[in-house]
Amino acid sequence: MDNYKKIIEDIYLEIRNVDDIGKVPNYIPELSNVSPDNFGINITKINKESFGVGDFDKKFSIQSVSKIFALTLAYKLEGAKIWERVDVEPSGNPFNSLLQLEADKGKPRNPFINAGAIVVSDILVSHLKNPKEDFLNFCRELSNNKNLNYSEKIAQSEKISGFRNIALCNFIKSFGNIKNDVDQVLDFYFHICSLEMSCKELSEIALFLADDNFVTHKGNKVLTMSQAKRMNAILLTCGFYDESGEFAFRVGLPGKSGVGGGIVAIHPDKYCIAVWSPKLNVKGNSFKGMLFLEKFTTRTASSIF
Amino acid sequence: MDNYKKIIEDIYLEIRNVDDIGKVPNYIPELSNVSPDNFGINITKINKESFGVGDFDKKFSIQSVSKIFALTLAYKLEGAKIWERVDVEPSGNPFNSLLQLEADKGKPRNPFINAGAIVVSDILVSHLKNPKEDFLNFCRELSNNKNLNYSEKIAQSEKISGFRNIALCNFIKSFGNIKNDVDQVLDFYFHICSLEMSCKELSEIALFLADDNFVTHKGNKVLTMSQAKRMNAILLTCGFYDESGEFAFRVGLPGKSGVGGGIVAIHPDKYCIAVWSPKLNVKGNSFKGMLFLEKFTTRTASSIF
Amino acid sequence: MDNYKKIIEDIYLEIRNVDDIGKVPNYIPELSNVSPDNFGINITKINKESFGVGDFDKKFSIQSVSKIFALTLAYKLEGAKIWERVDVEPSGNPFNSLLQLEADKGKPRNPFINAGAIVVSDILVSHLKNPKEDFLNFCRELSNNKNLNYSEKIAQSEKISGFRNIALCNFIKSFGNIKNDVDQVLDFYFHICSLEMSCKELSEIALFLADDNFVTHKGNKVLTMSQAKRMNAILLTCGFYDESGEFAFRVGLPGKSGVGGGIVAIHPDKYCIAVWSPKLNVKGNSFKGMLFLEKFTTRTASSIF
Amino acid sequence: MDNYKKIIEDIYLEIRNVDDIGKVPNYIPELSNVSPDNFGINITKINKESFGVGDFDKKFSIQSVSKIFALTLAYKLEGAKIWERVDVEPSGNPFNSLLQLEADKGKPRNPFINAGAIVVSDILVSHLKNPKEDFLNFCRELSNNKNLNYSEKIAQSEKISGFRNIALCNFIKSFGNIKNDVDQVLDFYFHICSLEMSCKELSEIALFLADDNFVTHKGNKVLTMSQAKRMNAILLTCGFYDESGEFAFRVGLPGKSGVGGGIVAIHPDKYCIAVWSPKLNVKGNSFKGMLFLEKFTTRTASSIF
Repeated sequence: MDNYKKIIEDIYLEIRNVDDIGKVPNYIPELSNVSPDNFGINITKINKESFGVGDFDKKFSIQSVSKIFALTLAYKLEGAKIWERVDVEPSGNPFNSLLQLEADKGKPRNPFINAGAIVVSDILVSHLKNPKEDFLNFCRELSNNKNLNYSEKIAQSEKISGFRNIALCNFIKSFGNIKNDVDQVLDFYFHICSLEMSCKELSEIALFLADDNFVTHKGNKVLTMSQAKRMNAILLTCGFYDESGEFAFRVGLPGKSGVGGGIVAIHPDKYCIAVWSPKLNVKGNSFKGMLFLEKFTTRTASSIF
Repeated sequence: MDNYKKIIEDIYLEIRNVDDIGKVPNYIPELSNVSPDNFGINITKINKESFGVGDFDKKFSIQSVSKIFALTLAYKLEGAKIWERVDVEPSGNPFNSLLQLEADKGKPRNPFINAGAIVVSDILVSHLKNPKEDFLNFCRELSNNKNLNYSEKIAQSEKISGFRNIALCNFIKSFGNIKNDVDQVLDFYFHICSLEMSCKELSEIALFLADDNFVTHKGNKVLTMSQAKRMNAILLTCGFYDESGEFAFRVGLPGKSGVGGGIVAIHPDKYCIAVWSPKLNVKGNSFKGMLFLEKFTTRTASSIF
Repeated sequence: MDNYKKIIEDIYLEIRNVDDIGKVPNYIPELSNVSPDNFGINITKINKESFGVGDFDKKFSIQSVSKIFALTLAYKLEGAKIWERVDVEPSGNPFNSLLQLEADKGKPRNPFINAGAIVVSDILVSHLKNPKEDFLNFCRELSNNKNLNYSEKIAQSEKISGFRNIALCNFIKSFGNIKNDVDQVLDFYFHICSLEMSCKELSEIALFLADDNFVTHKGNKVLTMSQAKRMNAILLTCGFYDESGEFAFRVGLPGKSGVGGGIVAIHPDKYCIAVWSPKLNVKGNSFKGMLFLEKFTTRTASSIF
Repeated sequence: MDNYKKIIEDIYLEIRNVDDIGKVPNYIPELSNVSPDNFGINITKINKESFGVGDFDKKFSIQSVSKIFALTLAYKLEGAKIWERVDVEPSGNPFNSLLQLEADKGKPRNPFINAGAIVVSDILVSHLKNPKEDFLNFCRELSNNKNLNYSEKIAQSEKISGFRNIALCNFIKSFGNIKNDVDQVLDFYFHICSLEMSCKELSEIALFLADDNFVTHKGNKVLTMSQAKRMNAILLTCGFYDESGEFAFRVGLPGKSGVGGGIVAIHPDKYCIAVWSPKLNVKGNSFKGMLFLEKFTTRTASSIF
């Protein structure tokens, strides 16, 4: 860890004062209240050692990052059949586009664009007795952390301004690829996206993707090794909307970003790292977050390539 | 190697008689003359040990696989400036589509779709004195193999039926992203695609992407470590047209396919493997080739994820 | 009229037994209950003479044909400002496509595709005190016909299966081009589409577009002459989804079709003609309806071209 | 005519000094040499009376307007079979887009976008012995005017900068919808577009579309009445690229514009009118030309609607 610590501290100091050309998005009103100066990093190794700098311990809205955990639970419950309803191809288009969905007859390109995550939500609504409660409990067990919670404020904020997501969900339903009531699916989806975590918590909860032998504190296996590898493959090719290629190219790790400015990245066999900085680049990913991770994998020579 | 040998032989025997649902493409007339029953595999480890089964020693038209070597030389000559003219994002569309090129104003999504490889060809034409000869010499040095050659027959066959590529090149030129004469660029491009190699040769020539310390027999470094890693990242996200996600998901290695039925895949730090079987699935990738590699990385647990 | 009568009767007899290659659509459940054998025609001249054959006096769901009357009222109330919110260009795409709407940032291509008619509905909801009642009264005055009514059954049937229209309306609202509550706008829209008329009634109500001097029985002018001409121009270029060019080419009159199998066509200065036959061609327009009108304008040499 | 004369003179004076927000296009180098201040109008009635103001007698490059005459000759030679190779639907997209062509598998949406006119050129190359000479003779007979000529300068200027048209032609050929050699088809196409006429000549040559009884000075019928009406229908729906709806809406006549700033419009049964002003609006149509025609049909109440 000592090696990582020094590198993380160095890069943190380098980047902290870099001029941030990103912008805080304004389409989820509640998110604009967060100070754009927050900047934190936390790494957790597969031996559970953890180290953070800056605002690593402050909670933020992880937004789309939680699509990882929704997909994990749905994959676990539904198995390989899930790929009949959502594909695993990069979208090559802005994250909320309706274009490709029409060409593909209602089957989203991958589970990490909004369309795909809404279908994943629908699958979970079909499987879970109390979707919101059960999903939260799943996340809590995954990270052995009872302090994980939804932000009702954020969930409501998305609901009243989420016309595109309502459009998406109805559009997919018109192709028959949403089985439950649109309102219920979206209420669940907006709650998933409202999960709050700190960088520390985020780097801990995703550890199951870095460690082949991971079991929860209750002794449960989360995914099979093959399933976990496949999750990482999808994260690598689809985790950053239409900047996935760029992230693979510059950082070289599977990962996922959220509109709240968080990014989590996974090195299979070694570690999980989370970065948070609210200003986003034009593609919707944290500007400083990507910069940090690029420098980090370069200096630690820990890209998977 | 012993472990790999046994697994390769086993999978070879399993798949040889599998019903091949793929089809030999007919749009390059000369390619249809190849027997669809050819099936060969060859692995080369970074210590240069090599092992092959089936038609591993028979030459075939590697087609788009040679885009790797064209990009490598262009990257070496042009450096990072190359990314101003071609992007590194998956295309999310069939490999010869003109759609995205229009939206992106003549900058191809990545160097492995035809549009991108044509721009790479244009860059090489600008740099090289005798493009065809110089590129061939580069490939020969890369693999210490004087037996590498173009197939004039194939090159001519593509030229007289390549209306889409002529269209592509003129279209990109209309945006100013082709600097040389269209005919010269395309003549070079068609020759690049006509390179012939056996699985053995292919698994040897791509070894520089698997081995951080690779030098040619003349003692030359091909790419910097960082450049090689970035090449692998692009191969992972873009090497299989709009089936790149699927290949990453099922196989989990950077790789590149060609319409001649060849696939090369790279495990950074371990090996390079080439497979050849001419029948292609609907996405244009070798059906048995993908099947073989999926089983191989699963049984050897050597996906990069 | 005598000349028209004979020609109409002749064509009616010719086409009645033609093999109908069209299909009754099944996406509005209630519409599939209508017998596909219905076939009626009615012409009304600007001197109010009227003549019909077949099922000319039987009510049917005029569906999208009522978009004419909604646009007329909105144009009357809003004036030329209406074109800031909806364009007058043919769409070149299937009628319920979301593609172009995204490219055009929420401004529908024209008022006769669903997206455009939903924006027109929103404009009416803003202007009218009791939208459903007021619109119905407007139609009744237009045709001096108190027997015009919505079909609640049809309106409900569309509402519970209209996921694409719900998607459309939310999507447009995400661009800010819907001002009222989505549910209210759609409820109004579904009612407009559920209007029922016979061919006779339809050819009478649209007469204001054929007659420059038209006034309602109460003595009210509906549109200015210039506005009426512009309505006809939009009908000519946009009235038949992506078959508008074909209709202009074969029939040569402004007109509008509906998914219920009705078509109304207008000859400025001469007449208004309505045809009804429920089976639709692949582009969603009445197969026999188009055939009838093509023969009719050819034999009467009354295309506007 | 007296009535028309006064109105034309009045509008000419009104518009001459209007601030022209249009721009002279720069993608055909030779066209930029024309003074943007040229402004001329000429009307020819079906009784052959002719009247012009401003630069009505000065030749200019009619560019796409000549697509009318190419289509006329191809329609005459090929008959209705021509519609198997080119459709009659508005394109809904910029005039040189490749998008729709891909979706429609190489069948252009209509004969007035570049793609369609190139297919029409190919049809003429198949029919004519000496395409360039024969087409010129056809135009000369059509207008009883031996002074019609190509501009070799313009034709060459387009050839060396026409990468998009070369792309289009090769792209269509890849679908099998070009039968002749690409170079020959394009050489012919570039010549067609280089025809030069004055407003006077243009309003005379298109008279066959206004007059049902038109015969050439040699006594030849050009098209059947039904064919001429269909030509007008296509002009109305497709003559102004993606501004066709707007032209129908504002002017209400079939017509065709060219990138040289010319517009010809036809009133079936009454007249043919040509306007020339080189500055184009954002959709590529003459700004003052459209303005003039809108005022003209409004004041003469001679829209076809």
